[in-house]
Amino acid sequence: MEGGAAASAPAALPYYVAFSQLLGLTLVAVTGAWLGLYRGGIAWESDLQFNAHPLCMVIGLVFLQGDALLVYRVFRNEAKRTTKVLHGLLHVFALVIALVGLVAVFDYHRKKGYADLYSLHSWCGILVFVLYFVQWLVGFTFFLFPGAPFSLRSRYRPQHIFFGAAIFLLSVGTALLGLKEALLFNLGDKYSAFEPEGVLANVLGLLLACFGGAVLYILTRADWKRPSQAEEQALSMDFKTLTEGDSPGSQ
Amino acid sequence: MEGGAAASAPAALPYYVAFSQLLGLTLVAVTGAWLGLYRGGIAWESDLQFNAHPLCMVIGLVFLQGDALLVYRVFRNEAKRTTKVLHGLLHVFALVIALVGLVAVFDYHRKKGYADLYSLHSWCGILVFVLYFVQWLVGFTFFLFPGAPFSLRSRYRPQHIFFGAAIFLLSVGTALLGLKEALLFNLGDKYSAFEPEGVLANVLGLLLACFGGAVLYILTRADWKRPSQAEEQALSMDFKTLTEGDSPGSQ
Repeated sequence: MEGGAAASAPAALPYYVAFSQLLGLTLVAVTGAWLGLYRGGIAWESDLQFNAHPLCMVIGLVFLQGDALLVYRVFRNEAKRTTKVLHGLLHVFALVIALVGLVAVFDYHRKKGYADLYSLHSWCGILVFVLYFVQWLVGFTFFLFPGAPFSLRSRYRPQHIFFGAAIFLLSVGTALLGLKEALLFNLGDKYSAFEPEGVLANVLGLLLACFGGAVLYILTRADWKRPSQAEEQALSMDFKTLTEGDSPGSQ
Repeated sequence: MEGGAAASAPAALPYYVAFSQLLGLTLVAVTGAWLGLYRGGIAWESDLQFNAHPLCMVIGLVFLQGDALLVYRVFRNEAKRTTKVLHGLLHVFALVIALVGLVAVFDYHRKKGYADLYSLHSWCGILVFVLYFVQWLVGFTFFLFPGAPFSLRSRYRPQHIFFGAAIFLLSVGTALLGLKEALLFNLGDKYSAFEPEGVLANVLGLLLACFGGAVLYILTRADWKRPSQAEEQALSMDFKTLTEGDSPGSQ
């Protein structure tokens, strides 16, 4: 979109990124505080196993996923391939942590004899997890695995970016639904009496929404997009030449 | 639909818009079906007053708000001012319907002696309503009220678009939270037994998320953006010259 050569980072970008990280870390800390202060903490081999679920999901599918999306804005002038690998790796970490969170809740349900997958939260959660995994696989195949034709990469890139943002937002929405579910199950009528746990959890919900908003803002601001189209094309051509052995001229 | 000199609409856009409208209408119909079949229908002067709240919010702050965002994609070749007025009017309709929904729930709470504004859904809801009203006022002042300098308009436009999308997404998220709240309050343990109402409401939740995703997709696809920058600039200059009577260069 932009023609400029690799420029220095926009002046305001670092402040916005720092703010998003502050929000993200506060989010994780407040989740920990909620689980520690009001839900008895975390332990795998007990009733507290459930509590691993919200913590893992907030760390993996909200904080780390959000940061993985920001990699291309933060490392604007690094080699494209390094940035790609970091983007892919952060998503792997997020996926593994989310998997632990998923095992925690299914294992807890099994031990307690609770029904699985009846709620809107669980439907959205499974949808997020499947979409996230598929998006990672397709992204890896197109962008990291050396072999996808350049023309295909160019056509898929906007879809990858849109679905990346959409899956992230659905993750935030699913976390909000889960938080609400936990509050209504555990607090019941006390929720409407402005119990401290309810107020803290509401603040946590607002932090989730704000983190989602901050990541989306940094991601979508047109003048903050990664500038190096030229480098990117050259690199893709390199891959293409290396792996296909044909001339770089043929789209 | 076309009347201008600008480029013809992208071939796939009408299909995506039609799909989004089908989703939106299904969403409203399923909300009506849920309230009619399982919640006793709607009446203002009874306990059924509450049910006006979800219906108004889904029609106003989800369906109409989403359609107001799509106006610039659907009416690509109409005069910019006509499109602007339609965009502003749809938002007014949405706001008025949402206000009725807001009055319904506060009035119902007052009659029943229920506490107000304790839940995450209500916090998000009030936030959405205030942001939506402020965004409308600022948008009107900058873009419809003839007087804002062209340079200010240009600088504010990206913020207006980002916050418009963000407020819409927060509206969808808030609706999901409200749906979840209604289900857990009303169904209780029956929710986990896959009662028909629970399954229908989960489907409604997925429809809400899908409508949000469809609107976001149409809105963000780069090659579907409204093309007529030249006309837009000329029109803004016209307004400026007409209303301020000064040269288009100042400020």
